[in-house]
Amino acid sequence: MAPTAIAPFQNSSELTQCGIKHTITKTAPSITPNGDITPVINELDASKLVFTRNLSPRAVPEPDSPEVWTQSVCTDHMVTCQWTSTSGWAAPHIQPYGPLQLMPTASVLHYATECFEGLRFYRGHDLKLRLFRPDRNTRRMLNSATRISLPAFEPDELQKLIETLVAVDGEKWLPKSRPGTFLYLRPTMIATAAALGVQKPKEALLYIIACCFPNFDTPSGTTGPSSNSIQQSSKARPGLKLLASKEDTVRAWPGGFGYAKVGANYGPSLVAQGEAKARGFDQVLWLLGKDCDVTEAGASNFFVVWRIGGKLQLVTAPLDDKIILDGVTRRSILQLARERLGGDLEVVERKYPMSEVEDAAEDGRLLEAFAAGTAFFIAPVSSIHFRGKDLEIPMSEGVTGKYAAILKTYLTNIMYGREDHEWGVVVNER
Amino acid sequence: MAPTAIAPFQNSSELTQCGIKHTITKTAPSITPNGDITPVINELDASKLVFTRNLSPRAVPEPDSPEVWTQSVCTDHMVTCQWTSTSGWAAPHIQPYGPLQLMPTASVLHYATECFEGLRFYRGHDLKLRLFRPDRNTRRMLNSATRISLPAFEPDELQKLIETLVAVDGEKWLPKSRPGTFLYLRPTMIATAAALGVQKPKEALLYIIACCFPNFDTPSGTTGPSSNSIQQSSKARPGLKLLASKEDTVRAWPGGFGYAKVGANYGPSLVAQGEAKARGFDQVLWLLGKDCDVTEAGASNFFVVWRIGGKLQLVTAPLDDKIILDGVTRRSILQLARERLGGDLEVVERKYPMSEVEDAAEDGRLLEAFAAGTAFFIAPVSSIHFRGKDLEIPMSEGVTGKYAAILKTYLTNIMYGREDHEWGVVVNER
Repeated sequence: MAPTAIAPFQNSSELTQCGIKHTITKTAPSITPNGDITPVINELDASKLVFTRNLSPRAVPEPDSPEVWTQSVCTDHMVTCQWTSTSGWAAPHIQPYGPLQLMPTASVLHYATECFEGLRFYRGHDLKLRLFRPDRNTRRMLNSATRISLPAFEPDELQKLIETLVAVDGEKWLPKSRPGTFLYLRPTMIATAAALGVQKPKEALLYIIACCFPNFDTPSGTTGPSSNSIQQSSKARPGLKLLASKEDTVRAWPGGFGYAKVGANYGPSLVAQGEAKARGFDQVLWLLGKDCDVTEAGASNFFVVWRIGGKLQLVTAPLDDKIILDGVTRRSILQLARERLGGDLEVVERKYPMSEVEDAAEDGRLLEAFAAGTAFFIAPVSSIHFRGKDLEIPMSEGVTGKYAAILKTYLTNIMYGREDHEWGVVVNER
Repeated sequence: MAPTAIAPFQNSSELTQCGIKHTITKTAPSITPNGDITPVINELDASKLVFTRNLSPRAVPEPDSPEVWTQSVCTDHMVTCQWTSTSGWAAPHIQPYGPLQLMPTASVLHYATECFEGLRFYRGHDLKLRLFRPDRNTRRMLNSATRISLPAFEPDELQKLIETLVAVDGEKWLPKSRPGTFLYLRPTMIATAAALGVQKPKEALLYIIACCFPNFDTPSGTTGPSSNSIQQSSKARPGLKLLASKEDTVRAWPGGFGYAKVGANYGPSLVAQGEAKARGFDQVLWLLGKDCDVTEAGASNFFVVWRIGGKLQLVTAPLDDKIILDGVTRRSILQLARERLGGDLEVVERKYPMSEVEDAAEDGRLLEAFAAGTAFFIAPVSSIHFRGKDLEIPMSEGVTGKYAAILKTYLTNIMYGREDHEWGVVVNER
């Protein structure tokens, strides 16, 4: 965190919990040669941050407590920043976490003019606070905002705001007494203008919250963020059980927006997800087209390891047709596999149909499969139900495949400071 | 309206403008034979309605005033009704129009768990208030809610709630001194539970608002609800100018949710819409697939009238592949055309590619085209820009084609009570 990003402590009584009402800070307007006044369109600027301390902070729940599993407990503060098409970005505000006020006509409530990011911050084994590749998240957020007609911003300024929230709430919420734990950050942008016309948003709110999150990466939490562990089906084998989607249920489409982290990719997937849960599966494996190309698992990227032509390959769907999310975990896995496992493993990004996965399983050439994302992290897959039959997927180490385990260790070491790496961005506490 | 649907006047000071906090009314829980208590899941029930009068009502804007063009002025009251997965529907509440409070983690702000309806109410030339086929809207809202995993409800109860809002605010907001005018109704449902898990909503809010809306069906308003008339490009010819979508921009796809009135169909369309506007067009004509099948225009259904094989045909895209919205105006046009124009006009619902529209235009067989929807009503189309060239579309009556004009008259007569018809549902004022 850049400490200069935080303005001197202010505590305005006007700034309530609903406090998205702060005054828009404008620099002086300029005057054109013919005397017209040009309004200033302000850029997002973390150095203008205003701080209102939460005077009623709450207690931090115990790790893995039922409260944490609700995924609803946020830290004491949140960052908010308003935008209008005429003035640009107002001064960001770090303020007590609390409800937002929206008019019933607000665009986001009708037209899904919303996007978000998901990243974590970690309490390292060296007791430092770290983010993992936050620049990837802030750049992706800009892509998502653009796809859904929300305003642009400088990603580095968003990163500074994220770091500020981590710096302010990190010490209490991710205490040094709990090394090896994390909280989940959710930068969000919504269109707030109160007008029913289907039009490009004229007002928006950017906000960042930090939420207590269960560790899905434990024996009790293998079903990922999309489920409540309490409702999780009892299973004979560990690992995710996936239900392949049918042709009548499609997550994303060429020319659509599958690559963007916009709300419109999530709500419409819940029916299929609910059906999968009701049938005892953990997630949907999203297929696309007549060839049943494999795309994503739930809201995570999907990988297989198979042997083909005498080689061992790590295979995942490509980004170029914009169907799948450009996952930060996905990118990191691919890069580490290329750098560190290149001798063993060929890394392949290409379209592949379910029939190839079936053939590999049939021939005994399928070594493992896993889902990967920020919420899930790396989750081994133990079966895929496709066209009426279960494809059993080996897990060589009992609860995971070999490469999922190796890659998870690489990443965990960077996240928690066991390995010094440029991807682990240390945040200084206040 | 069923007057019995309104409970005796209550004015609770606890029920503020943000007032979505009313107590959930439960009927007594039942006890199973083995002694377990079964919680009661309440159905949506308009007869439980609670009324909090707005003590600070606002002035009604002049028709077609700039305020009306903002599409943000709502009437004095709104209906709200909360739902939870454990208790079902609470007592509906008609209360002062005002902001909603949502937690920053609310599902609707992240996952587009939202759906809505659009319908109008009319002050007839006979001075009565009318809705137009509200049963079609309430049934469609149930379909949309189901598609986006929001809770089910009895459509007739929603209709009663809509009628109640019309009855309460109609006299003041659509006064008898303004026959031939209308207001726009927006029933909306959003998932409100404050939890970041990507999961089926556990809490929801249904609300109904009534908004002053410009009459797009005037010379100053031909560009439809998706634009601000002030920003409308000056045009040589009246009628909508459409820009055909390219293969890299798809509104809806097979196995998706194009048929449902969910937010996820709207936000993602804004980039293409913005590009169309910037290039001087009014709306996007959404095409699908390699054959460039014609689907919708903007957020409206699309119709052509052409001559083929010696017959005159009214043609529109079919509902069966669930790509297009099952428009109430669309259905009504098709039915009236079959009933009243069947001698002249064959009514056809089928897939048709842009090449057929081009061929018909080339041969002089294309007679007219129009968009149709609740906000737009029936809007004649004067040109389509497709693959680098403008397809000029005849408008036999100068500002409209012949059949668009006839169908519009039929519908207007029903809406404003010049024709007594079962589609015009009279609402008694309080």
